[in-house]
Amino acid sequence: MLIVALDPPFSSSIEGVGEEIVNSLNPVVSGFKIGLPYIFEYGLEKTRRLRQYTDKELIADLKLADIGHIMSMIVNKLAENGFDSVIAHGFVGVKGALSELKSTCDRLGLKLILVVSMSHPGSMEYIDRHLNELVNNAIELNVHGVVAPATRPSIIRKVREMIGEKIKIYSPGIGVQGAEPGDALCAGADYEIIGRAITNSSNPYEAAIMIKNKQDNRVRSCRG
Amino acid sequence: MLIVALDPPFSSSIEGVGEEIVNSLNPVVSGFKIGLPYIFEYGLEKTRRLRQYTDKELIADLKLADIGHIMSMIVNKLAENGFDSVIAHGFVGVKGALSELKSTCDRLGLKLILVVSMSHPGSMEYIDRHLNELVNNAIELNVHGVVAPATRPSIIRKVREMIGEKIKIYSPGIGVQGAEPGDALCAGADYEIIGRAITNSSNPYEAAIMIKNKQDNRVRSCRG
Repeated sequence: MLIVALDPPFSSSIEGVGEEIVNSLNPVVSGFKIGLPYIFEYGLEKTRRLRQYTDKELIADLKLADIGHIMSMIVNKLAENGFDSVIAHGFVGVKGALSELKSTCDRLGLKLILVVSMSHPGSMEYIDRHLNELVNNAIELNVHGVVAPATRPSIIRKVREMIGEKIKIYSPGIGVQGAEPGDALCAGADYEIIGRAITNSSNPYEAAIMIKNKQDNRVRSCRG
Repeated sequence: MLIVALDPPFSSSIEGVGEEIVNSLNPVVSGFKIGLPYIFEYGLEKTRRLRQYTDKELIADLKLADIGHIMSMIVNKLAENGFDSVIAHGFVGVKGALSELKSTCDRLGLKLILVVSMSHPGSMEYIDRHLNELVNNAIELNVHGVVAPATRPSIIRKVREMIGEKIKIYSPGIGVQGAEPGDALCAGADYEIIGRAITNSSNPYEAAIMIKNKQDNRVRSCRG
């Protein structure tokens, strides 16, 4: 239920390129989310090494939004480098973009996760105005999961109602961005994505355990 | 007026990681566009080396669409690695995203280019429905340029009308994607972005010269 966003810089007490965090957190989390800040800082080669330290989901959070040909080239490199899944934007559209990406992901055995709403206020300017359509695209494409923000639980509830139980909901926006651990789970998310509150801590393992406890308490209270 | 998209694989007769192409094309093009397929294939370090072979614009075509905090981290790495400009999606919204990105770009001396429409048919599903708003955002943010597709010249004409002469229009979609060299220039674009027709050629320099000639002929005929 907890996915750790590995965005550098990590706490100064942490050595290496995050292997230590991944290794120590592997038993207690559902996966790790890695984006361009990590890949640009350490390179894809070191990113691939993280695979040795975890058997949990490794998500490439690239928020892809390009034509199909380019996205297909990119996910080929992700599959070669140990990733299990990739995040792309629903708003880039299906024809000539997501349809081709989905075929490539299927061929590579990579899981596709689509952003249908984001945690920042600007998400309401355009993206959220198409929430229904984006979620319907996700259903029709039969993707593995969608991203919806913990900062707006009403959106998570709506997405869950629309997609049923099969498609996973990944929810960022907890901690620095404002939501509390458990908020998104209570609204129907499967996973809460938490970064800085864990990776900036001098003891990421303890920070993760504390967050998991908070999630549990919150979920107990909301499911009553 | 010609920008070369450096997406691997290059023609098998070309050695290295594109330095040869960049070096030979530098005198005849306006810049080079580099995206994740290149950076993932060769790493940021080799990407930085391209800087030695050109004094023209080096554009990072990441089509960024994330929260401001993450996009700012990413463009910091781009500035460190010799890029002049970065492409982001207008669709991600201003508040908490593009406003923060623009400030970071200004501080770094990096030029910001916003996608307001794309060359694939899926662009019409969501992005193009907000063309006016996205262009107005680009104007209000005072960005360096916008991306609009050569495959739909009517969109380029409309964007040019709205933004006046100050903001540059970069136009992909020529060659494999369907538009002819010069189509976008005739519609009002400043730069045409061409990739595979040049980089897949056994002689990229000759291919570029041929395309420039086609651009010139087309522009002469459309401007009477």
